[in-house]
Amino acid sequence: MSDLLASTAELVAIPSVSHNEGAIADLVEVRLRDVEWLETERVGDNVVARTHLGRAQRLVLAGHLDTVPPNQLSTPKLEGDTLWGLGASDMKGGLAVMLDLATATPEPSVDCTWCFYAREEIGRADSGLLELWSSRPELLAGDAAILGEPTDALVEAGCQGTMRIKISLRGMRAHTARPFTGRNAIHRLGALLDRVARWGGHTATLDGCDFVEQLQAVAVEGGVAANVVPDAASVTVNFRYAPDRSAAEAEAYLRELFVGTYDDDDAFELLDAADGAPPSLGHPLLAALVAATGVAPRAKVGWTDVASFWEHGVPAANFGPGDPLLAHHHDEHVTRAQLDRTRDALAALIA
Amino acid sequence: MSDLLASTAELVAIPSVSHNEGAIADLVEVRLRDVEWLETERVGDNVVARTHLGRAQRLVLAGHLDTVPPNQLSTPKLEGDTLWGLGASDMKGGLAVMLDLATATPEPSVDCTWCFYAREEIGRADSGLLELWSSRPELLAGDAAILGEPTDALVEAGCQGTMRIKISLRGMRAHTARPFTGRNAIHRLGALLDRVARWGGHTATLDGCDFVEQLQAVAVEGGVAANVVPDAASVTVNFRYAPDRSAAEAEAYLRELFVGTYDDDDAFELLDAADGAPPSLGHPLLAALVAATGVAPRAKVGWTDVASFWEHGVPAANFGPGDPLLAHHHDEHVTRAQLDRTRDALAALIA
Repeated sequence: MSDLLASTAELVAIPSVSHNEGAIADLVEVRLRDVEWLETERVGDNVVARTHLGRAQRLVLAGHLDTVPPNQLSTPKLEGDTLWGLGASDMKGGLAVMLDLATATPEPSVDCTWCFYAREEIGRADSGLLELWSSRPELLAGDAAILGEPTDALVEAGCQGTMRIKISLRGMRAHTARPFTGRNAIHRLGALLDRVARWGGHTATLDGCDFVEQLQAVAVEGGVAANVVPDAASVTVNFRYAPDRSAAEAEAYLRELFVGTYDDDDAFELLDAADGAPPSLGHPLLAALVAATGVAPRAKVGWTDVASFWEHGVPAANFGPGDPLLAHHHDEHVTRAQLDRTRDALAALIA
Repeated sequence: MSDLLASTAELVAIPSVSHNEGAIADLVEVRLRDVEWLETERVGDNVVARTHLGRAQRLVLAGHLDTVPPNQLSTPKLEGDTLWGLGASDMKGGLAVMLDLATATPEPSVDCTWCFYAREEIGRADSGLLELWSSRPELLAGDAAILGEPTDALVEAGCQGTMRIKISLRGMRAHTARPFTGRNAIHRLGALLDRVARWGGHTATLDGCDFVEQLQAVAVEGGVAANVVPDAASVTVNFRYAPDRSAAEAEAYLRELFVGTYDDDDAFELLDAADGAPPSLGHPLLAALVAATGVAPRAKVGWTDVASFWEHGVPAANFGPGDPLLAHHHDEHVTRAQLDRTRDALAALIA
């Protein structure tokens, strides 16, 4: 049994901001290349190592190699059983657990695919996982997947979808001394923003996990000049929707929600959308993972690559050490207890 | 009696966008310089011509020489008794009337000061009238003043004040998947905009003229990133206030109006303010002007240099040919009937 806190510190010491994963991918590749029960392949800055034991099922265990850019406050520091540092929680602790298990489990009960991929923390189009899906999809084949994102060492099932819509309200310009000859588009925003702010909320409970939807205005703009009644104003809304809605259903829901605040002359625009993934906890491997943790699962509120696997027909869950609320924060850290707990549960699953 | 439509056309033919009034000031100066009953002075691109007849009262008749920049649709055109063109209404028609009366009235009943000034259509700081107030205030001394701005050849009394305030609301950033850990500043705008939109309005009736106040949001902004609960949002409001309020009183009124939509952590900022001017129709010269028009006066809703004169203790009114609603519009025009009516009323006043 290796010292997971020490090996996490070793990974944190290697800078790996998105698009600069070469060095850490080299380390991972070297560690796995000579393991006799693994077939290891490098695709760009992604590393995939697989067993071929002819088991009835194959489990994919995946984690991203990159971090967000350094925060000036994030000085790596090891104190007792806690490691502070950029990526400690998101997600080099998870990578350390994966490396440990991959190199220490010659006879897993299921075939294992250990996937270390690049460029998760930036725009979707650049994702190393998408690079693998498009160039080498057979490397990601499996019956279920576990993403090592920070989850406080308990199962965070599925993930919510996210979309942005923009409502642009029209008006008619006029001099502010004679506003009755025009129509103020900014004034019309009031009712729209009230509807967002007073939205009653909605929670979908799937496989016992509560997916709490969120609706937030993330941008507002309008105005022409100091003495002009403005003829245009807009608000952009981010909707975090439960995985029992498709993007089309979520959009239809918002169009209905905002009825009366915009009319035919205005614009309701879908800016972008990414569906979530249902918890899929009925799958035997994911049910076994929950059992191995001994803790009730909960819903994943942020969007993760669990949705990418689901899009390709692979049920998946999030499970890793570290507090998800501290990801990208200057006080990001991970503890030895969570690292060990994560390893123990995964070891029990694949033993 | 000269042909006022022809002389207005002559003035419209001389381009005089703000800061380029040299040529038109030259023409005005040449016309007035040799009139024996006038003392004519040029100060920069301003021209002031005065009688010195020892009358009991002095009337200032003032008009600006500049226009806004040309609108691509504004082709000068003379059709029957109507002249279309940039500045036809605002306010070369008024200038033509002034030039005609100044050069045709050797024995006015009051001493007259004919003031043609530059740079009215741009920022206050550049105003030719302010240049005169600060460098040669004696040139503007008088008992009352008439501004030749377009008013449909009836008296538009006084003018409203105008101010802009900006309310900046604070919030707390959070991930939009977990908005309950933050506070959305854009959502807080809703109540504020509703209060602007639902403002009941207020009208001050002064000297029988209705000064209808106006409150209009002219800018709104807020937003951090696509998935961030925004911690700041702001709205800028333009208040057109009646001349019975000072700027300080108007600001206090708005602070009170918006109570409950902002709190101590937010910012309420006065961006700028320009007081209006009361109608002063009790002044004998302005009362006589109203009588000479034979039409009921009305309040001036836009801000004009009537307020500059009032600030220096000189009661003033707006009176000129042309539709004020067409000023700065591509279909700006003036009619022979309004030009003649304006001249007749002023001639009766100073005869």
